[in-house]
Amino acid sequence: MNKTKKVVYMALALLTTLALGTGCSPEKPTPVKTVEIPDGTIDPALWGKAYPVEYDMWKSTGDPTPVGKSKYKKGNDGGVTYDKLSEYPFLALLFNGWGFGVEYNEPRGHLNMLKDQSLVDPSRLKSGGVCLTCKTPYVPQLVKRMGKDYFSEPYMKVLAEIPKEHQELGVACIDCHDNKDMSPKISREFTLGTALKKMGVDESKLTNQDKRTLVCAQCHVSYNIPKDADMKSQDVFFPWDESQWGHIPVENIIKKIRSNPAYGEWKQSVTGFKLAFMRHPEFEMYSNNSVHWQAGVSCADCHMPYTRVGSQKASDHRVMSPLKNDMKACQQCHTETPDWLKAQVFAIQDRAASLFIRTGYATATVAKLLEMTHKAQAEGKVIDQALYDQAKDQYLEAFYRVLFFGAENSVGFHNPTEAMRILGDAALHAGQADALLRQALTAAGVTVPINIDLELSKYTDNRGVKKLMFRPDQELKDPFPTK
Amino acid sequence: MNKTKKVVYMALALLTTLALGTGCSPEKPTPVKTVEIPDGTIDPALWGKAYPVEYDMWKSTGDPTPVGKSKYKKGNDGGVTYDKLSEYPFLALLFNGWGFGVEYNEPRGHLNMLKDQSLVDPSRLKSGGVCLTCKTPYVPQLVKRMGKDYFSEPYMKVLAEIPKEHQELGVACIDCHDNKDMSPKISREFTLGTALKKMGVDESKLTNQDKRTLVCAQCHVSYNIPKDADMKSQDVFFPWDESQWGHIPVENIIKKIRSNPAYGEWKQSVTGFKLAFMRHPEFEMYSNNSVHWQAGVSCADCHMPYTRVGSQKASDHRVMSPLKNDMKACQQCHTETPDWLKAQVFAIQDRAASLFIRTGYATATVAKLLEMTHKAQAEGKVIDQALYDQAKDQYLEAFYRVLFFGAENSVGFHNPTEAMRILGDAALHAGQADALLRQALTAAGVTVPINIDLELSKYTDNRGVKKLMFRPDQELKDPFPTK
Repeated sequence: MNKTKKVVYMALALLTTLALGTGCSPEKPTPVKTVEIPDGTIDPALWGKAYPVEYDMWKSTGDPTPVGKSKYKKGNDGGVTYDKLSEYPFLALLFNGWGFGVEYNEPRGHLNMLKDQSLVDPSRLKSGGVCLTCKTPYVPQLVKRMGKDYFSEPYMKVLAEIPKEHQELGVACIDCHDNKDMSPKISREFTLGTALKKMGVDESKLTNQDKRTLVCAQCHVSYNIPKDADMKSQDVFFPWDESQWGHIPVENIIKKIRSNPAYGEWKQSVTGFKLAFMRHPEFEMYSNNSVHWQAGVSCADCHMPYTRVGSQKASDHRVMSPLKNDMKACQQCHTETPDWLKAQVFAIQDRAASLFIRTGYATATVAKLLEMTHKAQAEGKVIDQALYDQAKDQYLEAFYRVLFFGAENSVGFHNPTEAMRILGDAALHAGQADALLRQALTAAGVTVPINIDLELSKYTDNRGVKKLMFRPDQELKDPFPTK
Repeated sequence: MNKTKKVVYMALALLTTLALGTGCSPEKPTPVKTVEIPDGTIDPALWGKAYPVEYDMWKSTGDPTPVGKSKYKKGNDGGVTYDKLSEYPFLALLFNGWGFGVEYNEPRGHLNMLKDQSLVDPSRLKSGGVCLTCKTPYVPQLVKRMGKDYFSEPYMKVLAEIPKEHQELGVACIDCHDNKDMSPKISREFTLGTALKKMGVDESKLTNQDKRTLVCAQCHVSYNIPKDADMKSQDVFFPWDESQWGHIPVENIIKKIRSNPAYGEWKQSVTGFKLAFMRHPEFEMYSNNSVHWQAGVSCADCHMPYTRVGSQKASDHRVMSPLKNDMKACQQCHTETPDWLKAQVFAIQDRAASLFIRTGYATATVAKLLEMTHKAQAEGKVIDQALYDQAKDQYLEAFYRVLFFGAENSVGFHNPTEAMRILGDAALHAGQADALLRQALTAAGVTVPINIDLELSKYTDNRGVKKLMFRPDQELKDPFPTK
């Protein structure tokens, strides 16, 4: 270093020291805590004072989603309500007999979830207070306060236990966050906590990344509501017995829900069978050896990607499909263009949707054959018991698989080959049931037509108090039409 | 720059100039052409003089492949011959009636392909000279010289047209390369060239990367051999009518091969049906909107990855599954560990294999029901024609899909969801066929047992001149066993 340079450096060092206003090392800045969130705070507006960016995003989950970006999951696109029973008419037949067969809409976002319950046909709320389990942040205290009554008391009665101003408040900050440090936190110990324990998962050993999935898995799972002799709800549980972390296959779930008549929640009108049900098994499907799960990707990574708001980086609390967000989430890891990425998602979903639709109709056909069988029995015809028993068993295996895929909200994307395996097995079971029933009916002297009339309009039209009708414009057609 | 430094730089510059032995810019090195390969050279040893590294690799395709690396495609692992009819016993039933049902081994590498034909049961060579189409580099000249006779004359007679020393020479350099510049070159204009033309593909516009796939697609495709009234082979063609580049779906192939009785190559003994056949549709499966195809990946990228031999970089001419090469090919693009990558391949293949096995047995069961139906007819029982026709149609749709998947050499990996879609549809068709046949048989007064005895040993044992037996140690069991 030459002499002139040395002088300049020394002068700069001095100036820097002076500018900092102290002769020694600078004081460390401490973050200004503008708002403390007291324990047990439910009101999201109070959390929003500390986290206004996330709060605004969360509120925007109630906004209509952009039109034309998702092909199969249009929930709230352009503010339109999508009728799942018009999208897949065979579901109207299969679900006829209870609320899901009356009004079954695509979800309209976290903010609207409780409001949507007030709008849906009342038949959907017959299970009682238990229906609130995922819909309001007040549930943990309701369960504590009301005990068993929380599950069995009428829906409106339990809803009235929630402070008036929050009777339309959907899932909120406290459902997923620790109020002290905002880390993800399980609030539903009585459902998810219990289910994890059953699988031997030690909650204290979960990583932050695990929890970025598990806060979602509090609700985005299948669950069952055991009933007493009077069909009053007794509890709500996740059927994860005999399963393990990362491996909750449909086979184990079906085995569990078929193991106890108390898990029968409704009577399928076409067959007269008392059946269990399945709801949105996103976590089960995704965590069962999917490629993204194996890559360590959490739900939040794809559905709540980091985004920039002004100078801030925040996890996007407007939770939605990456398809509706122009594949921004995907691009965190994948370098391809959004259009290319989207084409890959559609390639998977088209194939899965096709097999779902075909298998769905095959299963609905079996339901009609069972109806025909029961009618024949009522008329005094003798149906071979062994054929019938086996056919019924095969039908149930098919039905629950179709139900599982149809309730899962990714149209196969969360776990493509597993989804297709499940549908393929459903097709095989439906085929066996169809075969044995045709044999039994024919043996009993009943003439079975080659093509079974599903009488779809009987199930798709005039549904519930609103007299809902089939909406042909909403039907999702087989993307691989046969000529 | 100070004075001392300047002097040092000038001295270095001078020394460099002197070392290069010239005062001006150095002469450009020209590659030494040690060997010129004359047009039409078939002998790989001559090509090997110019390209010894690739030549040695090509020769090593005849070596036994490493044991325990692939789960479902064990061809030549440890030098053992794997019997596909023992791996999937239902195929023995379905293929009974011609060569594929007698001896059907997993392939043992490019070097062995013609040798393998000399070892296989003679029933496999009944189609005649046409069987040599992919097996010897002499084919283009044989076709030119012999015309139609090439296809129809007995295999041994056509084989004798090949120079003695090359009668065991499998696919060689000239099959895929231009002798001038080594660029990939289509040698089978009469098969692939014709098929591409049918789809409107302009060969002159193909990229190098396209050709790195198409040289493989000369043979790794499904093809058919139309017969005359005496069942003499007339031609060989790819059933790509009505298809497009990047979209040759199984539906189009089935439509084509079912369109003309002349495409019936054999009689399935269980059903008595004259059927067409399908062979290894790797190109069709892969190019039909698979994710790797859409990413621009060619066959050679995965099966002939660039590798280092001494100081040279060469495309690995020991063509094989990336699984057997510890996923080196995959790691060109994917940063994960070989074990992780392998687990993803197996996750896909396990699910596909499971659905294949289940659907295969379902289809074999239908074949037995058809056998039962034909027996009943022979005994004078009246089978409803409409039920029978529909059942037969459904059976054929199922059979060709099972055949397509089973012949494709990636166990689903080349296009996972497409493979599963095909199998799912096969399951639906098999179910329909089963149902209608049980109905028809029952109506005709035939008692059909719930479980159909497939009499597998009848088909797996005592096959051909070698009296081949079922090898239980080679059976590939359903990776998702039902309890």
